[in-house]
Amino acid sequence: MQEEKLIDTLKLPEDLRTLSPEELERVSSELRDELIDTVSSSGGHFASSLGATELSVALHRVFDTPHDRLIWDVGHQAYVHKMLTGRRSKMAGIRTKEGISGFLKRSESPFDAFGAGHAGTSVSAAVGMRVALDSVDPSRYVCAIIGDGSLTSGMAFEALNHAGDLGLKKFIVVLNDNEMSISQNVGALSWLFSRTVTGETGSKARKTFKDLYRKGYVPEFLYKAIDRAEEATQGFFSSPAMLFEAFGFRYIGPVDGNNLGEVIHALENAKRQDIPVIVHCRTVKGKGYEPAEEDPIMWHGVVPFDRSKGEFKPANSSPPPKKLPTYTGIFADTLIDIAKSDKRVVGITAAMPSGTGLDKLQKELPEQFFDVGICEQHAVTYAAGLACEGQRPVAAIYSTFLQRGFDQVVHDVCIQNLPVTFAIDRGGVVGNDGETHQGVFDIAYLRAIPNLVIMSPKDENELRHMLFTSVQRNGPTALRYPRGNGLGVALDTNLTSLPIGKGEIVRQGTGALLVAFGPIISNALKAADILSARHGLSCTVINARYAKPLDTELLAAELPNYPVVCTIEDHALAGGFGSAVVEFANDAGLTLQSPIKRFGVHDSFVPHASQSEQQALHGFDAESIVTYVLERRNSQQLVA
Amino acid sequence: MQEEKLIDTLKLPEDLRTLSPEELERVSSELRDELIDTVSSSGGHFASSLGATELSVALHRVFDTPHDRLIWDVGHQAYVHKMLTGRRSKMAGIRTKEGISGFLKRSESPFDAFGAGHAGTSVSAAVGMRVALDSVDPSRYVCAIIGDGSLTSGMAFEALNHAGDLGLKKFIVVLNDNEMSISQNVGALSWLFSRTVTGETGSKARKTFKDLYRKGYVPEFLYKAIDRAEEATQGFFSSPAMLFEAFGFRYIGPVDGNNLGEVIHALENAKRQDIPVIVHCRTVKGKGYEPAEEDPIMWHGVVPFDRSKGEFKPANSSPPPKKLPTYTGIFADTLIDIAKSDKRVVGITAAMPSGTGLDKLQKELPEQFFDVGICEQHAVTYAAGLACEGQRPVAAIYSTFLQRGFDQVVHDVCIQNLPVTFAIDRGGVVGNDGETHQGVFDIAYLRAIPNLVIMSPKDENELRHMLFTSVQRNGPTALRYPRGNGLGVALDTNLTSLPIGKGEIVRQGTGALLVAFGPIISNALKAADILSARHGLSCTVINARYAKPLDTELLAAELPNYPVVCTIEDHALAGGFGSAVVEFANDAGLTLQSPIKRFGVHDSFVPHASQSEQQALHGFDAESIVTYVLERRNSQQLVA
Repeated sequence: MQEEKLIDTLKLPEDLRTLSPEELERVSSELRDELIDTVSSSGGHFASSLGATELSVALHRVFDTPHDRLIWDVGHQAYVHKMLTGRRSKMAGIRTKEGISGFLKRSESPFDAFGAGHAGTSVSAAVGMRVALDSVDPSRYVCAIIGDGSLTSGMAFEALNHAGDLGLKKFIVVLNDNEMSISQNVGALSWLFSRTVTGETGSKARKTFKDLYRKGYVPEFLYKAIDRAEEATQGFFSSPAMLFEAFGFRYIGPVDGNNLGEVIHALENAKRQDIPVIVHCRTVKGKGYEPAEEDPIMWHGVVPFDRSKGEFKPANSSPPPKKLPTYTGIFADTLIDIAKSDKRVVGITAAMPSGTGLDKLQKELPEQFFDVGICEQHAVTYAAGLACEGQRPVAAIYSTFLQRGFDQVVHDVCIQNLPVTFAIDRGGVVGNDGETHQGVFDIAYLRAIPNLVIMSPKDENELRHMLFTSVQRNGPTALRYPRGNGLGVALDTNLTSLPIGKGEIVRQGTGALLVAFGPIISNALKAADILSARHGLSCTVINARYAKPLDTELLAAELPNYPVVCTIEDHALAGGFGSAVVEFANDAGLTLQSPIKRFGVHDSFVPHASQSEQQALHGFDAESIVTYVLERRNSQQLVA
Repeated sequence: MQEEKLIDTLKLPEDLRTLSPEELERVSSELRDELIDTVSSSGGHFASSLGATELSVALHRVFDTPHDRLIWDVGHQAYVHKMLTGRRSKMAGIRTKEGISGFLKRSESPFDAFGAGHAGTSVSAAVGMRVALDSVDPSRYVCAIIGDGSLTSGMAFEALNHAGDLGLKKFIVVLNDNEMSISQNVGALSWLFSRTVTGETGSKARKTFKDLYRKGYVPEFLYKAIDRAEEATQGFFSSPAMLFEAFGFRYIGPVDGNNLGEVIHALENAKRQDIPVIVHCRTVKGKGYEPAEEDPIMWHGVVPFDRSKGEFKPANSSPPPKKLPTYTGIFADTLIDIAKSDKRVVGITAAMPSGTGLDKLQKELPEQFFDVGICEQHAVTYAAGLACEGQRPVAAIYSTFLQRGFDQVVHDVCIQNLPVTFAIDRGGVVGNDGETHQGVFDIAYLRAIPNLVIMSPKDENELRHMLFTSVQRNGPTALRYPRGNGLGVALDTNLTSLPIGKGEIVRQGTGALLVAFGPIISNALKAADILSARHGLSCTVINARYAKPLDTELLAAELPNYPVVCTIEDHALAGGFGSAVVEFANDAGLTLQSPIKRFGVHDSFVPHASQSEQQALHGFDAESIVTYVLERRNSQQLVA
C-alpha cells in the first residue's frame, strides 16, 4: 500500500502557513515528485518549474496569497504554483484543448494575479498593482518573480527604474537566477551575477570595512554610502547589489533558492524592508531530476518521457510517421548554406537559439551568429546597425515576439530601407502555447509599413529560395513561416532569387479559386483534392508568395473568372492577407462573380489546442473550405 | 563692418582637428550664436542643441567623422552637428517642406550615420555598426550620444548589456546628461546621476583608498575590483559608475559638457580604452541663451521668437486667428474633469507630460498622475497592473510611440481584456517632425487585436464624450486624435457614454457618400461644402466614430445607395479604416454602385511638411476628394 501523501491531506496553499519546516520539506518533495510524474506523461515546461519547487512553496508560505499578489514572469516556472493553487488534478491536461494553460492566466485562477507568456512583464505589472493597492488596501504585498533571462529584457529595467523612483513599500522582486533563461544566458549582467562573491567573503569584507571606518581610515561619506547598502545583508560587496542599488532597491542575496529554509528566511526579511527589495535566489534548473539537471536546455520544454529511463517518447503510439523536416530546421540549414558563401550574412536570435534553429549556425559559423538575450527591440536595431555597415543580417524572431520590436522595425529598419531579413518563425497559430504566443498579427502590423516586402512560401523548398531572395534584396524583407513540419518535398541545391511580388498558379481548375499565402496552402490543396475527388469540382489554387507587394497582375487576371473565390491565411482576418486581396479587388474595380471569402483567424484570441484543432476552431481547415465552396455554389445554383 | 566669422573660413568639420583651443572656443561661440539666430526665425528643437554645442564641436574634433561614426540619439540635440557637417545654409528651412529634417537622416548626410527620431535607439545601432566594422575596418571608432532621458528606455539597457558582454573596443557612449529629457526627468537613475560626488571628493576618496590598500587595511579582492573601475578616472566613487560597471563599461566622468577642453580630454581618454566606455557629460540645457537656460522645458522645441526679447512670435504675421483649443488640450481638461469625480481614473505619460497635456493633470491631481519616463513598454503594462486592481488608467501616448508598447497592448492589456484607455495623441500625419513621427500605422496594428475598441471623434466635443465612454467601458479602448487644433465647437458640460460601434450621419445628401473616421471628417465636410456650393451636388457624410467595431448596420444601409462612396482617414491605407469598410462590404456581400474609394496615406513614409501639405501630398485633402467625386460621376455619366 502506498504511503498517503501529505499534500493530499492539506488545504493548499493556506495550510502551508502552519506547517513545520520538516512538513514543508515533505510538501516540496511530494510536489516535485508529482510534477515529474505528471509532466512525464503530459509534456510541458519542465526544468524551470522543477528548479522553482522550493521557491513556490516558500512564496505561498510567506505570503498570504491570493490576498497578497504573486506575479510570475513568463510562466515557465509556475507549474508548482499551479499545483499549490487548486490545479493538481488538472496538470495532466495542461496545454491541451480545454485543459489548463501552460502559462499564467487570470481567468484560470485568482492566484494568477497577472497573465504571462512573454518575458519581462512581471515587474511592470507588479508596480501597477502595488500603486493601485495603495489606495485600496495598502496591507497587501506584491511580489514579482522574474528569471535572470527575463531580466535582460528592456521593459524589466524600465519597471525597476520606476519602482525605485516611487520607493514602493511591500514590493518585492524575486530574481530566480538559474543562470540561463531558455538557453544559456547572455549579456554582461549574466557575468555580473555569476561573479557574485560568496556570503563568507562578503561577510569578511564587510567586517574589515567597518573596522577600518571605526579606526578612521575610511572616509565617512564612503562608509555611509556603503552602510546603506549593507543594512539588508552582504549587499554592496556582492556585485549584483551594485546594479539593484543603482535602481533604488535593497538587495538581499544571493540565497540558495533550493534551500527552503533559506528562501523563507530571505522572503521574511524582505517583508520587513520599507523600500523595494530584490531577493536574489540561485536555483538549479531541472533540480531533482537528474537528466534535467544535466541538460536543462533540452529539458526546458518537453514531450512526454519515460521517467525511469529519462528518454522522450515518440509523439504518439501509432508507428512513427516519416520524419519530416520542420520549417525551422530548413530555415536554419539554408541560412548556414547561404552564410557559408556570403560572409555578409549573419543570424541574430533574441535568446531562442534552439527555438529558431540558429543553434546550428552558432555551432557551424560562430562568427556569423549573435544571441542578444531576450531583447527583441535591441535585436532589430542591432540588425539595422549591422546593415548600415554592409552586412546582411537575418533576425530570426517568433512572430509573437517580434511584436516587441515593432517600433524598431518601422523606425530603424524600414524608414531607412535597410537590407534586414526578418525570419518570422511561428507565424500563424502555434498550438499548445495558447493565446499569448499566437503569431497571427504580423501581416496586419507589417503590411502598412512602406519599403517592407512580406513573403511566405508554399513549402520548405520554396522557403529556401525565399531566404536567398530576401538576403539578396537591397531592402527590408519579412519571411514568414509556421511552427511545425514541412511536407517532405525535395530540396533544390541551387538557390535562386524569386521575382518580388510574383505569385504562381499551382493548380488549374474552373469551379473555384483558392488564393493562399504561405504553407497553409496545404489546406487549400487538400480542399481542392476533396472537391475534385468527392464532388468532381476542379479548383485553381494560387500560391500568392507575397502579402506585399501582391501579384496584382495575376490577381486581376484570375479573380473575375471564378464563381467562388477564397483566400486562405494562417493569420487574423482583420488587416491580413485576405484583407489585402479585398483591398486590391476593390481598388482595381474588379467585377467578381461573388464576394471573396476570407479564411483565417476570427476576431478572438486563439486558446491552446493542437494547431489542427485551432485551424478547425477558426474554420480555416480543409473541411471548412470544402463546405463553404459547396454551399456557395449551391446558393448560386451552380452544379458542383 | 561685421567681423568675419571664423567658421566662414573653415572647411568643416575637418579643420576642427587642427585648430588651437582658443580657435575651437571661438568656433563654438559662433555656432551657438548662429544657432540662436537661425532657430529664432525658423523654430525647432532648441534648448538641447544649445546645451550640446561644445559637445558637438568636441566630437568632430576628436573623431575622424564620417570615417568614425557618430550616432545621435533622438536628434533633438544635433542641430550644431548639422551645422558642422555642411548644413549651415539649410538651417533656416529646417523641418519645412523639402527643407532638411529636424532629426538625423542617413539620406541627408554621410555624417548622419544612423537615422533617429525616437529615443533610445542609438546604442543598439552603434553596437551593430561596431560589430560589422570589425570585419571591414576595425580602425574606426563608433560613438553613440544619448541623453539621460533616452537612457531610461529599456532598449538602451538591452544594448548596454550586449555591448558589455561583447567587450567592444573603440566603442564609446557619451551620456549627455542635462538632468532632463524633454520634461523633468524621472526614475531612480535620475536620482543616481544627480547624487554623483564631485571630482574633488572622488579624487580624495580614491587616494585614501589606495593608501589604505598599500598599508594592508583593504583586502586585495576589494581593492582590485575597485581599481579596475578606477583606471579611467574617479570611477567607482561616483555613483553612476556602479551602474555602468555592472554592464561591463568603463566609466569616465562626470565632466563639464559645456567645457570644451574637459570634453575633448575625456573623449581622447575614452579613445585609449580597450573596453566599452561611457563618458558622462553634464550639460546645461539651453546653455548660452538666458531665457532657455531658465526654462529649458518651454524652450525644448520652439516656434520662431524674438531673440532680444526672448518672446515667441505668433504663428504668422496676419492678425492672429481665433485661438482654437487643441485636441490635446481638450483631452487633458476632460481627463481632469473625469478624474475629479472618479478616483479610479489616473493618467499615465511616458515622459511627455506637456506634449500630452497631462502636465495639467499633474498640477491639479498629482495623486492621479504618473510619468514613467521614456518607457512606453512599461507604461502600458503598468497601466494593466493598475487596471487589475480596480483603477481605470488612461495611458496618453503619441501614436508613433505606442509602437514601442505594441506587444504590451496585445499581451498585457487586450488578452486579459483589462479596462485601459489608450489616449493616442498625434494620430495621423504630424507635420514638421517628419517620417519618424507620423502616427499613421495605429489603426492597422490595433485593428487585428481582439477585445479592443478603436474610436476617434469628429470634433473636440465628441472627444470629451469618447473619453468618458472609454473610461466607463469594461475593456480596452483606443481613442485616437490628431495633432493640432479643434474646430472651436461648443463643449457639452455633461458627459455621456456613447453606444459602442455606432456611427452617425452628420449630413444627408444623394450624390456621394463620404465615410470619415476621426477629425479628418473636416476634409470630408469641406469637400461636401465645395461640391454643394460649386457643383450643386449634395453628399451624405458619415461620422464613423469607430474603426472597430464598425457600425455595420449603418454601413449596410447606406453604402449601396450612392453612385460614389469614399472613405476618408488620416492613416495608412493598408489595413486602415477604409480597409475595414472594404472588408465589411465584401464580407457582407453588399452590391455597391462603384468601388469604394479610400482616401488616406499612401504606401510611402510621409516627409516633414505642414499637416495640410502632407494631406495634399497624399491626396486626402478636401480638393482631392472633390476632384475624385466629380471625375467618378463623370465617368459614370452622372450629371453633377
